[in-house]
Amino acid sequence: MKTVRIGLFGCGVVGSELCRLVRDTRDLFERRDGIRFEIAAVGVAHPGKPRPEWVPADRIVAGWNAVAAMPGIDVVVELIGGTGDAKDAVFDSLGRCRHTVTANKALLAQSGVELTRLAASKGCGLCFEAAVGGGVPVIASVAETLNANRFHRVAGIVNGTTNFILTRMKEEGMGYDQALLLAQERGFAEPDASFDVEGTDAAQKLSILAALAFGAGIPAHEIYTEGITRVTAQDMALVAGFDYVIKLLAIGRRTPHGVELRVHPALVNSRHPLAAVRDEFNAFFLTGDVTGEVMLYGKGAGPSPAAGAVLSDVARLARREGTSWFDRQWTYDDIEHVPIGDVETGYYMIFPVVDKPGVIGRIASTLGSYGINIESAHAHLPEPRNGHGLVQIISHRARERDVRGALKAVRDLPVLTGEAWFYRIEE
Amino acid sequence: MKTVRIGLFGCGVVGSELCRLVRDTRDLFERRDGIRFEIAAVGVAHPGKPRPEWVPADRIVAGWNAVAAMPGIDVVVELIGGTGDAKDAVFDSLGRCRHTVTANKALLAQSGVELTRLAASKGCGLCFEAAVGGGVPVIASVAETLNANRFHRVAGIVNGTTNFILTRMKEEGMGYDQALLLAQERGFAEPDASFDVEGTDAAQKLSILAALAFGAGIPAHEIYTEGITRVTAQDMALVAGFDYVIKLLAIGRRTPHGVELRVHPALVNSRHPLAAVRDEFNAFFLTGDVTGEVMLYGKGAGPSPAAGAVLSDVARLARREGTSWFDRQWTYDDIEHVPIGDVETGYYMIFPVVDKPGVIGRIASTLGSYGINIESAHAHLPEPRNGHGLVQIISHRARERDVRGALKAVRDLPVLTGEAWFYRIEE
Repeated sequence: MKTVRIGLFGCGVVGSELCRLVRDTRDLFERRDGIRFEIAAVGVAHPGKPRPEWVPADRIVAGWNAVAAMPGIDVVVELIGGTGDAKDAVFDSLGRCRHTVTANKALLAQSGVELTRLAASKGCGLCFEAAVGGGVPVIASVAETLNANRFHRVAGIVNGTTNFILTRMKEEGMGYDQALLLAQERGFAEPDASFDVEGTDAAQKLSILAALAFGAGIPAHEIYTEGITRVTAQDMALVAGFDYVIKLLAIGRRTPHGVELRVHPALVNSRHPLAAVRDEFNAFFLTGDVTGEVMLYGKGAGPSPAAGAVLSDVARLARREGTSWFDRQWTYDDIEHVPIGDVETGYYMIFPVVDKPGVIGRIASTLGSYGINIESAHAHLPEPRNGHGLVQIISHRARERDVRGALKAVRDLPVLTGEAWFYRIEE
Repeated sequence: MKTVRIGLFGCGVVGSELCRLVRDTRDLFERRDGIRFEIAAVGVAHPGKPRPEWVPADRIVAGWNAVAAMPGIDVVVELIGGTGDAKDAVFDSLGRCRHTVTANKALLAQSGVELTRLAASKGCGLCFEAAVGGGVPVIASVAETLNANRFHRVAGIVNGTTNFILTRMKEEGMGYDQALLLAQERGFAEPDASFDVEGTDAAQKLSILAALAFGAGIPAHEIYTEGITRVTAQDMALVAGFDYVIKLLAIGRRTPHGVELRVHPALVNSRHPLAAVRDEFNAFFLTGDVTGEVMLYGKGAGPSPAAGAVLSDVARLARREGTSWFDRQWTYDDIEHVPIGDVETGYYMIFPVVDKPGVIGRIASTLGSYGINIESAHAHLPEPRNGHGLVQIISHRARERDVRGALKAVRDLPVLTGEAWFYRIEE
């Protein structure tokens, strides 16, 4: 029997659940893997705070530093979160050549390159299955099981809060504010939901996936990010007429010009498996040259799945002791980051217009002069007619810079009654 | 740089594709993993047969035995298939303490317990990611990334041929024979399709998954197996009226009475993610106590995904050299195998009847006398009415033995015009 002594930094809901799992999976890991986990120390900001019975009270110490300095720790688990203390703690831990597990996507999306380089140079492990997708086994699948692939694309619904909101808007015709309120009531959204609804959470996950899939060391703040706050129930209903649903996607693509990374609401064909991903579920779509398309689906959040992923990482590190795996964890390629203006995709554009003959023609001609090929154009007029309407245009693949230029030019046409807007179409 | 010398048994489409991958992923594995793969020997039945240029001609020898006896092989890859020579070859290879990778589900589903025990006793590795799900990373996910879970259920669409046929029947109203023919034309079904359409392939995969998820050492031939040959386009249309689709499912469940394993066509709610799995795609639904539900989706077959999974296993074994992983690969539990008669699930039953008042009442009463609770009962009468019809009954959870008993008793009622049949409902 091999004993693995865990030093825990932070003990919130995930940390506390990890302590419970260590207790409740003891027979499983002992019998199957010959591993006994032990919570050797728990460094917390407030040692006096009441905690569940399964958090070993006699192992609680004040602050992560006290745990870091302790001898005999085999694996450090960082569950402080954020990029303040957590960052210092993980750098310190790797600096001491300690195997480290973290669920901290913000930290990885900010400092992933430095952290992985430090881990490799020290010959120690850094694992983070819980940082992306909660219990969905996406990190191990990209990094290990699918490692004969060169990935073309990693795309998905990677944020449960926004997917819940968009699902309610689509299925019940709710407005954005109403759906957000429901998400907050159900515990799927924070009181301040901006981190999720603005797309920041999705961008952080995409940064981590892109590092693994493409060897791209691009931090989250450099990723083009648009949230869902401007999506309306009307847009949902309009695109349904063309067999599309609106989903917040995180998309990474390898192109001949470099890697494209973007987070934004996108139109997905209603027969595509991503369209069937409802409510708080996540789905990761991975496309590689060897395996083709694989989708991994599940709840992307929750203390229990996250703690399970952390424990699996601890076991992974413990079982790799003695191998040369640790100095070979990541390679970053010198890869171009394609700016959003250079992205090419299909576009669905909506123009609020006056209800007059010739309107579609004038808009279409302007788009044409920017080199945008139109796949179809449709007028949407309210009944009874009130002199106003919407023109909807679906383009073939076009360059975003051209689309934005064309929309500016259309603005000057006398037929518009308001600002046009658009969604990108993901095939 | 670590060189990993591969001894290949068999060189059909997957073996040949493996040779191509070894050539074409060289930079990937060298740079990222510090591993160089080398095809050291290829044992084949017909050495003179013409092969693609990427199969190293100077490494081809006659028969697997010649490769087995060769010194300096690091990992053996068995791609002969079946349970004849392949079985001897894998036992021989493990007996020599050689790490072995196989894609052979038939062999594992027949002799998995002996093979894994032999591997553990010799301290060598046995990997088989390619045996289930092709490129879908289901084996590694169950065995490693989700290993903090006690699994309640593993269920899924695990056979692409039958899913293609059922999808065409549903979406285009094709009959079974016509859809099978189309599957054969498209290369999704063999000329003799019985291995797939009778459910054997699915039962073999279920046997392997059940070993990993439940520690159940139950060979495929002991699994209750029903194929899709009796599914009709009419049944498809009827169940659509209740928001169900018919899918061939492989279902493993851990119950208080033991483990339930079964392969049969089942009704799946049309909003369930499994219902959206179309054509030749596979999907594995894993339910654990820690992670909840996870679904893994992709094409379950094809030489390239299979070869990619094999190569990933070879890398996995190579990187584990020097660890204690190899003596701890599987534990089998002394677990009861619940007979099909004791299975409890919902049932959808169809009774061909005469079109007369009182028919539903008589059938319902008979079912009731067997303790079967009816959720709903519906008459389906053709227009124009011709004196015949169908009664459809959806039951609450009931025991299969009781359902079969009730159907026998109903047979004696004077209202039936033919044999009743049923589908199980999977929630």
